[in-house]
Amino acid sequence: MNTRTIDLRSDTVTRPDAAMRKAMADAEVGDDVLDRDPTMAALEERVAATLGYDAALWVPSGSMGNLIALMIHLRRGDAFLAPEHAHVLGSELGTAAWLAQGMPQVLPHDAGPGRPTPNSVAAATGAGPYYALATTLLCLENTHNFAGGAVFDVDEWNGLLGAARQANLLVHLDGARVWNAAVALDVQVSDLTRGADTVQVCLSKGLGAPVGSMLASDSSRITEARRIRKMLGGGVRQGGILAAAGLLALDNIDSLACDHANARRLADGLRERGWSVEQPQTNIVLADGPMSVGELATLGIAAVTVTGRTRFVTHRDVSEADIDEALARLGDA
Amino acid sequence: MNTRTIDLRSDTVTRPDAAMRKAMADAEVGDDVLDRDPTMAALEERVAATLGYDAALWVPSGSMGNLIALMIHLRRGDAFLAPEHAHVLGSELGTAAWLAQGMPQVLPHDAGPGRPTPNSVAAATGAGPYYALATTLLCLENTHNFAGGAVFDVDEWNGLLGAARQANLLVHLDGARVWNAAVALDVQVSDLTRGADTVQVCLSKGLGAPVGSMLASDSSRITEARRIRKMLGGGVRQGGILAAAGLLALDNIDSLACDHANARRLADGLRERGWSVEQPQTNIVLADGPMSVGELATLGIAAVTVTGRTRFVTHRDVSEADIDEALARLGDA
Amino acid sequence: MNTRTIDLRSDTVTRPDAAMRKAMADAEVGDDVLDRDPTMAALEERVAATLGYDAALWVPSGSMGNLIALMIHLRRGDAFLAPEHAHVLGSELGTAAWLAQGMPQVLPHDAGPGRPTPNSVAAATGAGPYYALATTLLCLENTHNFAGGAVFDVDEWNGLLGAARQANLLVHLDGARVWNAAVALDVQVSDLTRGADTVQVCLSKGLGAPVGSMLASDSSRITEARRIRKMLGGGVRQGGILAAAGLLALDNIDSLACDHANARRLADGLRERGWSVEQPQTNIVLADGPMSVGELATLGIAAVTVTGRTRFVTHRDVSEADIDEALARLGDA
Amino acid sequence: MNTRTIDLRSDTVTRPDAAMRKAMADAEVGDDVLDRDPTMAALEERVAATLGYDAALWVPSGSMGNLIALMIHLRRGDAFLAPEHAHVLGSELGTAAWLAQGMPQVLPHDAGPGRPTPNSVAAATGAGPYYALATTLLCLENTHNFAGGAVFDVDEWNGLLGAARQANLLVHLDGARVWNAAVALDVQVSDLTRGADTVQVCLSKGLGAPVGSMLASDSSRITEARRIRKMLGGGVRQGGILAAAGLLALDNIDSLACDHANARRLADGLRERGWSVEQPQTNIVLADGPMSVGELATLGIAAVTVTGRTRFVTHRDVSEADIDEALARLGDA
Repeated sequence: MNTRTIDLRSDTVTRPDAAMRKAMADAEVGDDVLDRDPTMAALEERVAATLGYDAALWVPSGSMGNLIALMIHLRRGDAFLAPEHAHVLGSELGTAAWLAQGMPQVLPHDAGPGRPTPNSVAAATGAGPYYALATTLLCLENTHNFAGGAVFDVDEWNGLLGAARQANLLVHLDGARVWNAAVALDVQVSDLTRGADTVQVCLSKGLGAPVGSMLASDSSRITEARRIRKMLGGGVRQGGILAAAGLLALDNIDSLACDHANARRLADGLRERGWSVEQPQTNIVLADGPMSVGELATLGIAAVTVTGRTRFVTHRDVSEADIDEALARLGDA
Repeated sequence: MNTRTIDLRSDTVTRPDAAMRKAMADAEVGDDVLDRDPTMAALEERVAATLGYDAALWVPSGSMGNLIALMIHLRRGDAFLAPEHAHVLGSELGTAAWLAQGMPQVLPHDAGPGRPTPNSVAAATGAGPYYALATTLLCLENTHNFAGGAVFDVDEWNGLLGAARQANLLVHLDGARVWNAAVALDVQVSDLTRGADTVQVCLSKGLGAPVGSMLASDSSRITEARRIRKMLGGGVRQGGILAAAGLLALDNIDSLACDHANARRLADGLRERGWSVEQPQTNIVLADGPMSVGELATLGIAAVTVTGRTRFVTHRDVSEADIDEALARLGDA
Repeated sequence: MNTRTIDLRSDTVTRPDAAMRKAMADAEVGDDVLDRDPTMAALEERVAATLGYDAALWVPSGSMGNLIALMIHLRRGDAFLAPEHAHVLGSELGTAAWLAQGMPQVLPHDAGPGRPTPNSVAAATGAGPYYALATTLLCLENTHNFAGGAVFDVDEWNGLLGAARQANLLVHLDGARVWNAAVALDVQVSDLTRGADTVQVCLSKGLGAPVGSMLASDSSRITEARRIRKMLGGGVRQGGILAAAGLLALDNIDSLACDHANARRLADGLRERGWSVEQPQTNIVLADGPMSVGELATLGIAAVTVTGRTRFVTHRDVSEADIDEALARLGDA
Repeated sequence: MNTRTIDLRSDTVTRPDAAMRKAMADAEVGDDVLDRDPTMAALEERVAATLGYDAALWVPSGSMGNLIALMIHLRRGDAFLAPEHAHVLGSELGTAAWLAQGMPQVLPHDAGPGRPTPNSVAAATGAGPYYALATTLLCLENTHNFAGGAVFDVDEWNGLLGAARQANLLVHLDGARVWNAAVALDVQVSDLTRGADTVQVCLSKGLGAPVGSMLASDSSRITEARRIRKMLGGGVRQGGILAAAGLLALDNIDSLACDHANARRLADGLRERGWSVEQPQTNIVLADGPMSVGELATLGIAAVTVTGRTRFVTHRDVSEADIDEALARLGDA
């Protein structure tokens, strides 16, 4: 077949639009390693405010943002908690272990997909002798990618924060798609991010920037994060080019609602065609159906397999019409 | 109370007997870093033969033995499989992660306490793109300490080895107490150790040596293990003193049957006194009862808590009479 | 004073010009983690060919390029050789040690500034027992930044490569400014890069791209480098934006001759004003004079201190007139 | 030739004597991981007092002692100073770099063999921007092995301590042979050890214990050292066996004077036989002569090559008669 591929593998495939391209071309820049690039500085300030933190730092990828957070928080040989199938567990090439020096301890999804309970947090911690592993960090992920873009709400967030503090745990939120959670719940993003020690958010997924994620925290941790970023090779020079796109990306939060509507539309269509589908809360559809990812590819529909199911992700570069076209390619309902 | 404590916390508390002390006093020694100490060399040769491997290396602790094995096997950012509550996961201060650079993936005990199935091994592996975590190692533990000294038999061992090889996994056996497994199953130790890439066994638990564990493998891996042991600071000079005790410890394998009988005697007695007890397969009794570890201590009975239950371990320095005395202190059946 | 600062701190401060900005705005992009961005792929192919290698990989910074090279080459606890004051020794926050796991051994500048002799390489290596540090890698730097942009020529390069191969050493070239060396020597860049195992070159220094360096090697090492880059968080999505600038930067090589002329002009002027100046071979001037860096700043001249001397770096954003203006601010000759 | 080898390779080859063997056989022991072995505890207390510190920890080797000290002191990517050819630089398989995460900076022997000046310490440090390597630790070595057992005295020690404190550096002393320095200078050992942050001393070199070194520091660092020792696999169970030998080894300090006299006797004899010899300050003789180490071996004289010269080490198991015999084998004066 000679059809245009409808790319539903990930929202990372989104391309900068004309306005972003113009902003990048016009960006004021400086040497961000030596002086802080002015556009970078503006982006970092705006993201910090949006998330409810003192300071923020641009990083080339969400993986680096998570990694730096864990490197700041963990002592050699500490354990950290993370929900089953979290990105920091299975999708960052083990850097949480070998590089951030943390031994992972997996939390069950006992409050629902992607959502551990405060009780699980409490049960997984406790003091021991000097030769016992000490658990010192709770990592959460909202939305939870491999649980199908699952969302936890403000009350759950605060409950988990409370359980963590009760157990003397630091807290890192992998909020790569927390924008989607905020839109789905119709709350301020900061309601879902405030109160942790570090938060990572991504500009290059649903929001459409070509490159970049952000790490937010208090000022002294961000100072240390800047040092670690330099170590890892993530300090860039005229980063304002990319920061200019990031600033525009932040204007795209509300439009994620379209991606969510498209995800529901896709889920309905798949269900009508006999697929077993989890009802999407955001822009990720997990489904089991009669076709493999390879067979979908022959129809010009790009998807991936995660945890044994087919994952479709809607995003800015996929329209309602594209969803209908994809469904049409799958045959009659 | 002024009673002698009956120490059932661990078989690591065993003390060298008079014969061992004499052997240590009389040991021929050399500089094991420069030349290989002759008594060390004899011990390494005997252990290799006993386990069915080409070569073996003395290490100061089982933790170092496991650590070296993982350092040899794992590439930065590889994942390894290990059964829930394995010693390498929770009892080695996270070194499997930060130092051996492995991301752990936990296998369920789906064949019984301490025992994963070959199907679980197969399900946990599989190829992915370059940015996906690659699982390259299976760690097993026989007997499984935190599962109550649980044993898997020769058929299960071979089945797990087969599943690992099918999935292109290397295999490391934490056989700190594999001596107990062999005695419980009435098989040769080598039947339970042969076929892996590395095996660690302990001389200073039930066998009674004061210090030392052994890592067995092929000759080229043991050469590399010797280099890594030096790095970690585990190369010792006149180690023959300790190796002399190790050689005598190997004569104590059969006598572990007494520890197993004592464990059953203790389990029976606890059960009669209202405790909920898992029937011990070897020298470890896991039980839930009306007394905390702290309360037991006031009666002169030392035990520990593992995974929420009280653990009692029988060993050379606890006699049948000691078991009866401990039970007596717990009151009438 | 209210003068425009003439920024001679580093050529990293160069800003993208209008043509680069347009190229970035128009760049074709893809998801470089999933599929390889097409503009990235074009850049990687062109750089590989320019340097005389099979393959190349874009990285966000030269530090990451050097780091990945060392991570590929070094085993835990190997030693590597590098000339005194090399960037990998003192300017990368120790990552060569703690992250690439290498113990540095410093080579003297016995052939001239920045230039070790083949004899020094030979003298620093040799076989030892298993517990001895093994030296396995030679790192070179051309031009050598902290030696004042010092150059070694094709014959020296080949002599050093030969000494390294004789001693069974791998070779990495930190060629962040090898473009300058080629222009100064009037040779093809590949004459100064071919024959090593890995080479790092920078696009965001004198060549003017906003962000990015490249690592070149054989295909299998670049495959591994891509995996490590993902680990470090350096995998980016629509990187074609930056690669488009990189492609234009490669057209700027010849124009480095202007920077070199400006450096000589600056050196002459400084000398006339009583400074002690090393004659620059490329675009870096090391000088000792009556003013501190702080005092220069009050005149609107930005410079830095390296190894106890004042360093001035000429680059695309500093014209001949700027040099004359800077000299004028320093007073009469 | 069928002669008994006179082993002058290292004082690590010393074997426990009859008294030590009896003490080991009779030692009171406990489980040092769980409870602290009583003989270990006695040894640790005595060593701490001898060195002028609050607390001490037994470790299986001096390499582990140095490694733990560096792990406690260094942050990821800090630099540390050490004199040229220090044991932590070249003789510990790079663990100071890859495992303790430190970038070494080499100090010259500008006050004499093995002895850097306070000025060198001061010159090697200084504040920089966030992306600059920060030097945070000074490592010293007394006696300095590869400088021929060179000694620095109490005034130099205090001068170096002062320079370090002035530069906000922590200080670790590799005092594996500081006993020899104290004897050579006729001062209390604590005069040469007090005032640092950590000190490592060795029991299994000249003092004759079969296995073991000690790390001394303040109590809170020793608590952390105990945790790290467990991580590295250096926590042992009935370590009192070895500690008993260590206690007797401490009684052997004064007898090191014999080794020193033998070293001078050997140096004189070598000189008379045409060797170029550095006058030994302690028990190490560095010499250049007409015979290689291989040729010496054929005469039944075991020595090694360090930094290009032949090293002979005298120790408890080599008598004055052995020295004369060795010289006789070398031919007439």
